[in-house]
Amino acid sequence: MTGWVLGVDSGGSGLRLALARTAAGRETPVAAATATADGPVRTGPSGIDADHLLELVLPRTAALLSELPEPPDAAREDGPDGKRSPRIVAVCVGAAGMATLGDGLRTVLPGAFARELGARRVALAADAVTAYAGALGERPGAVVAAGTGMIATGTDLRGWRRADGWGHLLGDCGGGAWIGRAGLEAALRAHDGREGGSRSLLARAEAVFGPPASLPGMLYPRADRPAVLASFAPEVARCAGEGDPVAVRVLEEAAAQIATTAAAVCPPEEGSPVALTGGLLGLGGPLLAPLRRELASRLPHARTVPAAGDPLAGALLVADRLARDALRLPADPAFLHLG
Amino acid sequence: MTGWVLGVDSGGSGLRLALARTAAGRETPVAAATATADGPVRTGPSGIDADHLLELVLPRTAALLSELPEPPDAAREDGPDGKRSPRIVAVCVGAAGMATLGDGLRTVLPGAFARELGARRVALAADAVTAYAGALGERPGAVVAAGTGMIATGTDLRGWRRADGWGHLLGDCGGGAWIGRAGLEAALRAHDGREGGSRSLLARAEAVFGPPASLPGMLYPRADRPAVLASFAPEVARCAGEGDPVAVRVLEEAAAQIATTAAAVCPPEEGSPVALTGGLLGLGGPLLAPLRRELASRLPHARTVPAAGDPLAGALLVADRLARDALRLPADPAFLHLG
Repeated sequence: MTGWVLGVDSGGSGLRLALARTAAGRETPVAAATATADGPVRTGPSGIDADHLLELVLPRTAALLSELPEPPDAAREDGPDGKRSPRIVAVCVGAAGMATLGDGLRTVLPGAFARELGARRVALAADAVTAYAGALGERPGAVVAAGTGMIATGTDLRGWRRADGWGHLLGDCGGGAWIGRAGLEAALRAHDGREGGSRSLLARAEAVFGPPASLPGMLYPRADRPAVLASFAPEVARCAGEGDPVAVRVLEEAAAQIATTAAAVCPPEEGSPVALTGGLLGLGGPLLAPLRRELASRLPHARTVPAAGDPLAGALLVADRLARDALRLPADPAFLHLG
Repeated sequence: MTGWVLGVDSGGSGLRLALARTAAGRETPVAAATATADGPVRTGPSGIDADHLLELVLPRTAALLSELPEPPDAAREDGPDGKRSPRIVAVCVGAAGMATLGDGLRTVLPGAFARELGARRVALAADAVTAYAGALGERPGAVVAAGTGMIATGTDLRGWRRADGWGHLLGDCGGGAWIGRAGLEAALRAHDGREGGSRSLLARAEAVFGPPASLPGMLYPRADRPAVLASFAPEVARCAGEGDPVAVRVLEEAAAQIATTAAAVCPPEEGSPVALTGGLLGLGGPLLAPLRRELASRLPHARTVPAAGDPLAGALLVADRLARDALRLPADPAFLHLG
């Protein structure tokens, strides 16, 4: 079925959504309009808060729809008010924590999107799946999504393999919060006079957060602790770029963790593509140089390829294939739930 | 001044309080009555919640006072209702996070205890200071307090040195939450097929918390995340005791961290006493054996001594010395605030 599809990418630091026309054949849908919301969707005792997500998504979708260029007849239908309005055929929401904290979303969103947008098909994907679809489309391979968190996802198109993505207390090893946390720990070691400290990292921590004694009070009461930790990762990269040996070691260890995680999910076929995605790559050389070395050593059979698109593009691609009954990526109750 | 003193020990997993008669000379006050409250005092945007602490402390203190044996005249005074009731001369509250999150307590508690209990002297101490006073009294040396968190405190009786105690995201290296977290990470590595995993730890994690996929949802929404992490530390010790090499390595590394932290605060004098305190010692041999090795290697000039008492005994000791104008431990705006 042709018309418009809605993609949503919900992450630790905010939410993005986009509308695209359904594509043709194996083409990639192109975002026609996008919108953003700052800050993460709330997480409560029952997981990711579906009502909060809808509060963020529905008004922004309505605004985007109202600004769309005149759609062809096939993409319109009569609305309840008698006006012919654009038709949303399918929605894909990719969300951080979907696999483990997504029960509320799986219960609420398919019905809500059908009711509010007329969407007939809804996909609820782990952010790792939308990152995968954005980066490699529907080819088998492995995708590393490294931002505040860290997860690697692989598929042979029969099933999914996931490694890490357990959040900042249980894993996300080598991700932005992990790097920033290690950098702040090294700063406080220097402050205390403990072994393993870095005075350069301490100076940067004081410049960014103020006196060390105020740091716990600035971090622990916040709901977005992983984002606060990750905000220090660029300072670690900066100190590493200037040769600070503790910062260099933090990034070398992060690179080893990321490659280890990729190795756990990559299909064994020679030449399997591995794409690196996510904001963490913005740390540049101090991370990327050791990461290239670690990937070459731990995944000699794979080849690193550029990511074709981002997780929002991946959400649009999944929504598009779903709209046209052409999805090749495998469904999965936790990673890619089709409602 | 003689009479009764109140000691309070507020930690990550609950609160304890005790009343004691003022002592004589350098004697240690002896708790005459104690009470407990489960669960940590709340922390809000302005730090530790003073009103919540008072809600827990005041009714329990009133109950203890009402059950005290008939006090001698010197420890009684006329109450507002004309009845002669026991006199609380001094209070010492030792609280986790006092140094960094204690501004609200320092503002509210001295006035509140004067008003509600008639206390003329109030000491607000970091839990590290009450742990010190309980373990070594007023001798110079170093005390390691290792429970859910991890902090080392040293004094030469002129000033305090503190190392670590930064909480589970910034430090507390080698403490209960640190060990439990490392154990759960190793469990999830095994689940994912990543290097560095332990199938024994995975089996224990599944036995304690259920399927790995449910773990993030059980941990991240909770306010007592450090306690949840620390609850897994005994499982790590158990696996280490059974020879699991990953668990053994976690405890060896914890021991190295604890000794490193102690070394940062211990006075340099030959024979300086170092006392180990806190619930973490209950992990037994799998932690204590490597800890003895690490202390001998990193602190050859010090001697490890048993702790004389716990942090609640330390709070009573500080309150007693304060009541009698005989405190030798040095005051400090953050660690030992005298109101």
